[in-house]
Amino acid sequence: MESQSSVCANFEQVGQAFASHYYNVFDSNRGQLGQLYKDEVSMLNFEHSVGRPGQFKGTAAILQKLQSLPQQVKHQVITIDCQPTPGGGVLVMICGNLLVDTEIPQKFSQVFQLLPTGSGSYYIFNDIFRVNVG
Amino acid sequence: MESQSSVCANFEQVGQAFASHYYNVFDSNRGQLGQLYKDEVSMLNFEHSVGRPGQFKGTAAILQKLQSLPQQVKHQVITIDCQPTPGGGVLVMICGNLLVDTEIPQKFSQVFQLLPTGSGSYYIFNDIFRVNVG
Repeated sequence: MESQSSVCANFEQVGQAFASHYYNVFDSNRGQLGQLYKDEVSMLNFEHSVGRPGQFKGTAAILQKLQSLPQQVKHQVITIDCQPTPGGGVLVMICGNLLVDTEIPQKFSQVFQLLPTGSGSYYIFNDIFRVNVG
Repeated sequence: MESQSSVCANFEQVGQAFASHYYNVFDSNRGQLGQLYKDEVSMLNFEHSVGRPGQFKGTAAILQKLQSLPQQVKHQVITIDCQPTPGGGVLVMICGNLLVDTEIPQKFSQVFQLLPTGSGSYYIFNDIFRVNVG
C-alpha cells in the first residue's frame, strides 16, 4: 500500500520510459492509450480555454478527444524532466516539436502526473497539453 | 489533516492566483520567492540536462539558483492550466513569453505542484522550468 510519504526511487527511469512509450503509442496506435489512463479518475486539459473548453475526465472522454485529433501526428521529444511526487508518483514534463500532417512543426509542452497502480506499474492521473503559441 | 483522497475544490482559483503572484514576485522582488517553497522539501528543475545539471532541492538551493539569473526579467503569461492532485494539491502549468534584459522574447513553460501547508495556504512541492527551444 502506497502512503503519501512514499517516494518513487527510480522516478527518472519511470518518467523517461513513460514518455517514450506514450508518444510511440500516440503516433502509431492511438487507441491503445486508453490503457494508460484510469476510468473516471484521470484528467486531461487539452488546449483548454474559457471560450473553447478542453477539459476531460475519465478514460472514455479522454480517448474520444485524442481520437478526434488528426491521425497523422508525430511528436519529436526534445526535453524530459522528471520529479517524484507524494504517494510514490512521478511528475513528467515534456517539451518538443509537434508535426501534424504536412504543417510546419509547432512547439508543444505536456505534463503528466503518474501514480502507482499498486501492482508495479503506473497510470496517468494528470495530463495537460499545450501548443506554445501566442 | 489532509488525506490523500482529499480534493482541492477551488483548484482553478488557487492555481490562477498562485501563478499571478509567483511571476509578480519573480519579476519585482525575487528574494521573496523563498516564502513559497518549503525547506528541504521543494524541488526545482531549471533547464536541467545531463551535461549541465539544473536540479535543486530545498528553499536555500532553489533561491540561490533563482537569484543567480539575470535581474531584469519579465514573464508574460499566456495560458494557465490547473488540475487537482491527490492530497488536496493543485497542478499548475503556465506557458508564456520570457523577456530577459533587452533580448527577444522566448517561449517558456513551467509546471508547479502546490501542496497544502495545513494552515490554509500552499507551498511549492514540484517546480519544473523550461525555455522551449531546440
